[in-house]
Parts: sequence; structure tokens; C-alpha cells
Amino acid sequence: MRALVFDVFGTLVDWRASIISALERFGAERGISCDWAGLVDAWRGVYVPSMDRVRKGERPWAKLDTLHAESLDALAERFGLPSLDAADRDWIVKRWHELEPWPDVRAGLERLRERHVLSTLSNGNVSLLIDLARHANLRFDTILSAELFGHYKPDPEVYLGAAGLLGFEPYEVMMVAAHSHDMKAAAALGMPTAFIARPGEYGPGKHVDLATDLAVDIRVRGIDELADLLCG
Amino acid sequence: MRALVFDVFGTLVDWRASIISALERFGAERGISCDWAGLVDAWRGVYVPSMDRVRKGERPWAKLDTLHAESLDALAERFGLPSLDAADRDWIVKRWHELEPWPDVRAGLERLRERHVLSTLSNGNVSLLIDLARHANLRFDTILSAELFGHYKPDPEVYLGAAGLLGFEPYEVMMVAAHSHDMKAAAALGMPTAFIARPGEYGPGKHVDLATDLAVDIRVRGIDELADLLCG
Repeated sequence: MRALVFDVFGTLVDWRASIISALERFGAERGISCDWAGLVDAWRGVYVPSMDRVRKGERPWAKLDTLHAESLDALAERFGLPSLDAADRDWIVKRWHELEPWPDVRAGLERLRERHVLSTLSNGNVSLLIDLARHANLRFDTILSAELFGHYKPDPEVYLGAAGLLGFEPYEVMMVAAHSHDMKAAAALGMPTAFIARPGEYGPGKHVDLATDLAVDIRVRGIDELADLLCG
Repeated sequence: MRALVFDVFGTLVDWRASIISALERFGAERGISCDWAGLVDAWRGVYVPSMDRVRKGERPWAKLDTLHAESLDALAERFGLPSLDAADRDWIVKRWHELEPWPDVRAGLERLRERHVLSTLSNGNVSLLIDLARHANLRFDTILSAELFGHYKPDPEVYLGAAGLLGFEPYEVMMVAAHSHDMKAAAALGMPTAFIARPGEYGPGKHVDLATDLAVDIRVRGIDELADLLCG
């Protein structure tokens, strides 16, 4: 194994708590009351459907920032936010660029990078991922994104494109993710897989993806444990 | 200005001395005598023509590793190396992945990265640039390469594609390079330009690109001086 590629939202960063917290501060400063947690959950709820429209060819390629902006517009009135101007809307969409990592991530990546090439492999667009890595101080060797391939995960073009750009065969590139669909798609293309359960991803009492029905190569509780396994 | 993108060969790394030195060690270990400096100069001499065949549509896209391998094959007999096997050939081509930086580069990039997004913007393929950045311990926020756009510099698709992926307008992205053609192409698209003369790039007594006839935005002697100017 030569390289590891990482899913980002949920796998490396706690998008839900990060965005709810940022929007609660925004609301308090502006005197806007809103069910911010409900908005964030509803926003994430239309994440997969919005990418599926691209994946099925129902619309041309659009990067995730664009999909996020459109989804937010569609939800704003339902959550009592009809008065958002363009600057507020852009600021809220940009909260996806500044997410806090889970506590095991930063140091785990540092250790893994000593022996392996590390890259993101996320549906987030390149500029989003750059901002996120800078904000969270996560060091990758490069940023790989669905945007580079004009396809969203789990389309095979993303995984095969990543291996190709890294100069490796799929069996040399491990996919690290907290989601069954990522594990399935990568394994089907011959990539080794490492699964990390993130029970807190969708909030308390929500569905937890444990990938119990999948034959993944490695199961770990965090990036630190992955570094223990792969780097000794 | 939000981001800086860097040409790599010649601008950040001393490709000529690095490869000559590696091949001299290789020759000594294998007992192969060769005009290694002559080979490296001839190899670099066909660099631009090999990319121009792609740029003019005379052949489909091929990444730089492939062009380097083909060029080396074409030169091997002339330099008395007909006996190279595939493993030797691949090893020699890989020398372009492990080049030494000029002494001002590493620390200069660290300082620039505190305030700006930094990326490569090179004709080297992505895997070459990842290896090079790891070898030289140069920290970028991402690796951008001609390979992502299916065009070689100075085609405009490379510069505009880079600005697009970084999420900025061309006027927000500074091109940093030691070569007039990079400065001209970037400036024509509205990008700010920083020129660094590298008198040693092609060896003693060879042509030095001073870009004296160009109106660049900044002229510096190294990345450290660029950091002084932009970061105070």
C-alpha cells in the first residue's frame, strides 16, 4: 500500500457540530432566531439527492459550493430565513469550509504521512477542501476532489481517477471513510478499505453507519488507531 | 491577492544539478561511463518540443513522466546507453521526482503560506510533484498540474483552470516563475506575476532568462525575498 485517500465530511471532521455552532453564533449576533440544528440536518438531508441529480445526468456538473447554496436557498423560507441577503447566504455556505476535526485526526495524519502519500478524496470542491485543511491544520500531500473528475462519489471515475493521478494501481491506494457507500465503491474497484465508525456524525440518537454487513480490510476507531496499525 | 501558484522546475528546484548528480552516482555504481551532463542537457532540450506536440494536437495527452521516458529512449543510443533495461529506464525517469530545492525556497514557502494559499502550477504530473514536494519537504496547500487540465503551460487552460479550482479570479492568483513564457501567459490572463531569475538553472555559461523585456509585477532574487515583500 502506497497511499491513503480520505473521505472528509464525517470521517475527518464533525461537520454537524461545527456548522450548528457557527450558525448559532451568527444568529445570536444578528438577533435571528432559527432552529439551526434542524436547518443543518435538513441541509445535509438534501446533500446526497443534490449530487444524485448530477450523477444521473439530470443537470450538468456543479461543484459542492453551488449545490450547498442552492439547497440553502430552497430551505431558507421553511426555516424562517427569507431575509438572507447574498453576503449572508455566501457566508453560511462557507461554513462548510471551516469544520473542526475529530480529536484523533491531526496527529494521526502526521504519523501516517511519514510512510504514505496522503490525500483527501471528497465530494467537496478543491477550494473548500483547501480552506478546510488550512483551518483544521491537517496536512495532506495533495487535495483530490470529485471536482477534478466531474463526477461525485460513489461514481467509479472518482476512485480510479484518484489512483491514476497518484500514479498507483487501485490496490495500492487505501480508501478511508466512515460510510458504507464509500467502502463498497472502493472495494469493488480493488482498493483496500479502512472503515472508521463515527457514531456522533449525525447527532445524538441518529442513524449510525457501522458497516456491519461489509467485509472491509481494516476497522478502526480513529485515525490514530489507523496509524498504530499501519505505522507500528 | 489570495493565492500564489509556483512553477517548479528551475523556479523552485535545481533540476540540472540534481539529476546530473544522481546519474553520476548511478554510473559509478554500475560502472557505466557516459557524458551525464550532456545527456541531461539534451534531455531537457527536448522538453519543450515534446510538450509542443501535445499542445499542437499532434498527439493525444501524455503526462510528463511518459514524455520524459520517450525522450530518454530517443537519446539513449546517442549517449552510449543502449543497454538500459526497463527498470533502469524507469529509475532514471524517476530522478525528476527527487530534485533539490534552491536554498531560499523551503523557508520562504513556509512564511508565504501563513497568509496565502500556495500551490504548484507545473507541467510535471501530479505524482511527480507529490514525490518532489515530499522529497524536498516543501509545503503547499495543494498540487496543481497541467495534468489536471489536459493542457501544458503556456496554454491558457492551465492558468484559468488553476484559478477556478482555487476558487479565485485570475487577478487574485499570482504566478511565480523563473521563465518569461510563464510570465507572459499569466499576465495576458490578468494574473499578477512575480519573476525570479535563476542564473544557474541551465548550468555555467548558458542562457539566463532575465525577462528584461517584460513588465512583471514583482522581481525578486528568491522565495525568501518574495516573502519579505508580501508578508513584511
